[in-house]
Amino acid sequence: MECFPKPIAKLIEEFSKLPGVGKKTAQRLAFYVLNMEKEEALSLANAIVNAKRDIKYCSICGNLTDRDPCVICSNKKRDETLICVVEDPKDIVAMERTKEFKGLYHVLHGSISPMEGIGPEDIRIRELLVRIKNSPVKEIILATNPTIEGEATAMYISKLIKPMGIKTTRIAHGIPVGGDLEYADEVTLSKALEGRREI
Amino acid sequence: MECFPKPIAKLIEEFSKLPGVGKKTAQRLAFYVLNMEKEEALSLANAIVNAKRDIKYCSICGNLTDRDPCVICSNKKRDETLICVVEDPKDIVAMERTKEFKGLYHVLHGSISPMEGIGPEDIRIRELLVRIKNSPVKEIILATNPTIEGEATAMYISKLIKPMGIKTTRIAHGIPVGGDLEYADEVTLSKALEGRREI
Repeated sequence: MECFPKPIAKLIEEFSKLPGVGKKTAQRLAFYVLNMEKEEALSLANAIVNAKRDIKYCSICGNLTDRDPCVICSNKKRDETLICVVEDPKDIVAMERTKEFKGLYHVLHGSISPMEGIGPEDIRIRELLVRIKNSPVKEIILATNPTIEGEATAMYISKLIKPMGIKTTRIAHGIPVGGDLEYADEVTLSKALEGRREI
Repeated sequence: MECFPKPIAKLIEEFSKLPGVGKKTAQRLAFYVLNMEKEEALSLANAIVNAKRDIKYCSICGNLTDRDPCVICSNKKRDETLICVVEDPKDIVAMERTKEFKGLYHVLHGSISPMEGIGPEDIRIRELLVRIKNSPVKEIILATNPTIEGEATAMYISKLIKPMGIKTTRIAHGIPVGGDLEYADEVTLSKALEGRREI
């Protein structure tokens, strides 16, 4: 990479591996880091090292955590009869932000995608079934993404769980709050219509 | 910051200190790093540590370098009668990209800015004068940014150097005024270099 001294070139290369970081941004970040106070830069490096060292998956729900079980699974105030199934730990962050959901989670770490060769056995469905058998679950909320893969995964799981006599629900599709009907796509709009409720 | 385990919260906090990285991007980067192979993440952390440890300023020109003097200052093929004065090491990267300039550099590490309380004694002007006295310099190209501060700095330096009988030139306004050398494209920058005039 051009005329950079090796340690700078290496830093730029490493930064450009991050998502949404191109060559220019990587250069900008690298020069910024070189301009930082030494302690600040080391603090960034240490945060990476520590996070990689201390963060594991929760053995119960599969969320990212620094203790096992995670704060959510070990919180006695949460409703253990309710499990929300999501694709990714990031989805838990989004759900928690609503402050509405008081149950537990189950992270699949992916969704069924024949195109990418990901089958039901590649995501944490087996763990979910074991978990349901060994705990007083009454309802499973399927909060996988509203994509083809997410829908297929939700369908697959609901077919496995329903015969076990457990209520299985899917989060509603509709117009995003603050959105505009005019710009809503047909599929979303028909889903919104389909899911209409009496007020 | 919400419900993140401490090591993740810390990583997000550190990422959000980087330029152009807001809370959302910092979260995305943090989760990306947590998903990386361990070696890859450590490689990023090490690149930061190594760059901070190994990169110093060149004692001659003030460029960022891992050896002293830097590769440009110690390159015998470069024209030591020509010195290009820039505000920032990043500007050298941009200049080198043109492949037109074969002289040496001098990094001021800033520009005169009364608004920010930066006077001529706060940037590396004294070092430039000493350098000129002790080397066979024939021309000084003032390639500070085409901003008010950059222009003022160029004027200030040219007034000091001209009485010493040395040709002083300013890169042409091929660069969009108000822009930044760092982001100039090679062609514009070559034109600017080509059209330099004595001031």
